[in-house]
Amino acid sequence: MVSGEGGRSRPAPFAASRPVRRGRPGYDLESLLSVAIAVFNERGYDGTSMEDLSRRLGISKSSIYYHVDSKEQLLALALDRALDGLFAVADEVLAAAGTPAIERLELLVRGSVRVLTEQLPCVTLLVRARGNTVTEQRALARRRDFDKIVADLVGQAERDGDIRPDVNPAITARLLFGLVNSLVEWHRPGRHDAAGAGPGAAADAAELADAVCAVAFDGLRVHRTEAGATVASGLTVRAGAR
Amino acid sequence: MVSGEGGRSRPAPFAASRPVRRGRPGYDLESLLSVAIAVFNERGYDGTSMEDLSRRLGISKSSIYYHVDSKEQLLALALDRALDGLFAVADEVLAAAGTPAIERLELLVRGSVRVLTEQLPCVTLLVRARGNTVTEQRALARRRDFDKIVADLVGQAERDGDIRPDVNPAITARLLFGLVNSLVEWHRPGRHDAAGAGPGAAADAAELADAVCAVAFDGLRVHRTEAGATVASGLTVRAGAR
Repeated sequence: MVSGEGGRSRPAPFAASRPVRRGRPGYDLESLLSVAIAVFNERGYDGTSMEDLSRRLGISKSSIYYHVDSKEQLLALALDRALDGLFAVADEVLAAAGTPAIERLELLVRGSVRVLTEQLPCVTLLVRARGNTVTEQRALARRRDFDKIVADLVGQAERDGDIRPDVNPAITARLLFGLVNSLVEWHRPGRHDAAGAGPGAAADAAELADAVCAVAFDGLRVHRTEAGATVASGLTVRAGAR
Repeated sequence: MVSGEGGRSRPAPFAASRPVRRGRPGYDLESLLSVAIAVFNERGYDGTSMEDLSRRLGISKSSIYYHVDSKEQLLALALDRALDGLFAVADEVLAAAGTPAIERLELLVRGSVRVLTEQLPCVTLLVRARGNTVTEQRALARRRDFDKIVADLVGQAERDGDIRPDVNPAITARLLFGLVNSLVEWHRPGRHDAAGAGPGAAADAAELADAVCAVAFDGLRVHRTEAGATVASGLTVRAGAR
């Protein structure tokens, strides 16, 4: 069973231990997986049975078993897809060794927001995983590896003097990715909060990454100077000019 | 059935439509509810049956029905407890009409972090509610009312010139409470990340509220001045002094 073999560094989400079956009419694995992930997110993985999936797909359970061995295999494919995306970003960031930690941290946040918007249903499952199955436990172990990378970058950036030292680095790291992960609860691609933002998912992701980085790195507050100008980090606005 | 009558402004979590029964040996409603909430958080509400609760409690289903009419009533009691706590904070903040919006926003964040730490299992259920039952839909409607209060304060603070205008206020409001809500995924009262922080849940909550406010309002980044000193908002540190 593939789900029992979900290696931590498996590169491609569909590198299963047996060839993916093709040619069955109705659903291919990709579209079946997409429906399964949607139902898992609606009802929770534990609250979804193969009967539920069969009903939603309008095909028999044996047609589902044509593609996968178990419900848990569907979960494993989804969680690996989210994690592979996040680790691809982390690997890229770790490879940029000459770049200051604070900048690598920002790259990691931006890349994670992009993965989140591109793979929203899979990342949502990952964020909500509780560890009730072997598959979820493996995913949570990979998530802890990712969190360790974040915490190490935060620690290095603090030692560089680029991150405020009055907040514990472990808490800082958790707040930073808590902020990123919280997007799964309200971000819906293509449904803009912003008035007149650019079209398409890529613009969505870029706008969202800008907002997350602005809040996380520079804060919400505008600081007034004695001259009466107001200053937000990376931004100077004349008092009353708005 | 009480869960069908969960009014949006019901003041006390146990103001049920019939007197709470007492005196049954084994569990009172409070301890039964506490176990039920723990199981809901572990397995998801949809994934938990009355059989699961009965097994975990070590009492018969009929003993559970002595206290409540349904599984959904237990959920309603839990969600109302979280929401009543949050609205008590919101009411207090809204009553402080002379206080600038940015300060009221900070009070709202601090109060919400306190409610979250005091009622962590109930708030966790609330944050994870998907709207699969009438009870969850009512809770989500109350959450939207709360989010509206946050968004209005953010809008007012931006009009006051106290919040950076380069991030859309609706996104700002969501990021701010996304940050607060993300605490349910990792905060465990009494399990400190900080080395040597003060003891007890109250110190936990205060430290956490400080960290959330520092990150959300003033950002992680330390800004270097030309004189070589580094400045974090609300904090000035000599370069190299750490």
